[in-house]
Amino acid sequence: MKFCSACGASVSQKIPPGDNVLRYVCEHCQAIHYHNPKIVAGCIAEWEDRILLCRRAIDPRLGLWTFPAGFMEIGETTEEAAVRETKEEALAEVAILSLYAVLSMPNIGQVYLVFRGRMLAPTFGTGAESLEVDLFKREDIPWEEMAFPVVAEALRCYVRDAETGQFPLQLGAVLERYPS
Amino acid sequence: MKFCSACGASVSQKIPPGDNVLRYVCEHCQAIHYHNPKIVAGCIAEWEDRILLCRRAIDPRLGLWTFPAGFMEIGETTEEAAVRETKEEALAEVAILSLYAVLSMPNIGQVYLVFRGRMLAPTFGTGAESLEVDLFKREDIPWEEMAFPVVAEALRCYVRDAETGQFPLQLGAVLERYPS
Repeated sequence: MKFCSACGASVSQKIPPGDNVLRYVCEHCQAIHYHNPKIVAGCIAEWEDRILLCRRAIDPRLGLWTFPAGFMEIGETTEEAAVRETKEEALAEVAILSLYAVLSMPNIGQVYLVFRGRMLAPTFGTGAESLEVDLFKREDIPWEEMAFPVVAEALRCYVRDAETGQFPLQLGAVLERYPS
Repeated sequence: MKFCSACGASVSQKIPPGDNVLRYVCEHCQAIHYHNPKIVAGCIAEWEDRILLCRRAIDPRLGLWTFPAGFMEIGETTEEAAVRETKEEALAEVAILSLYAVLSMPNIGQVYLVFRGRMLAPTFGTGAESLEVDLFKREDIPWEEMAFPVVAEALRCYVRDAETGQFPLQLGAVLERYPS
């Protein structure tokens, strides 16, 4: 950030009075510009014990695999965001079963909210942001080609829990590091 | 938003190619400026069956009651944000017990992540953003003076569940409407 989005003047970094974090503050209108973590809503969706995964058609991590996930938008709920991403990336309709994982990534300012979903039909397709979409048996998940550590972590927990059929909420943090 | 934070030129609202949401786009450098929901991390903290609440010293809703809660910062986890807010607003140390509620507010672009917490000692005080902090028995909660509908909703569920001692995750949405 170099310029104030309210008045167009230059911003500088300073700690506002009563705060303890460096913020971008406008040198002209004194507006304080806060940057906060973004929510990524994702869905691990199943059809008859197979898991829906997408191969990314966009950077970062083009060509690697993930479950449907993307930035939540203003105007929707977390569950609606997960359903929308599944529709956009995998052309699949899902019903949300539960919130499965809340994974913070403090070093990149993101929080993944990963839901469990049930596909309403065994129909899916290649959304605009995907190169390929498929249903994978748990033993066939392409672990060596996961797009992001956070995706691998959530899936790894999920596959473990699928053995028992119990899916307690996973709460944790992942230090996301990958070549961007 | 009126000006591009990258180059200082004017922005206009348009739907970028491949998108379906109106974004602020720079007329000069073409930068797309996304606005996404913010996370509010909160903590319902107890000491011997009493709940820690703060009376707000700041707008909006100055003078009304809430559990400690505030915007999550980049660089921390969701749990760390809840612990920090409890420290800042109520000068109390808590251990996080579980994630209790995930409440979306689609009409204002916020998601509350409310944790259950256990106070490490019966010590608390009035933080800079509070007028008054106190421990309340469940039957003494000032329901008529709650700061926000989402706070009242989370507390109402919590008090109900405290009867059984079981606190299953509450996942839902709240249409936040109050005079700002």
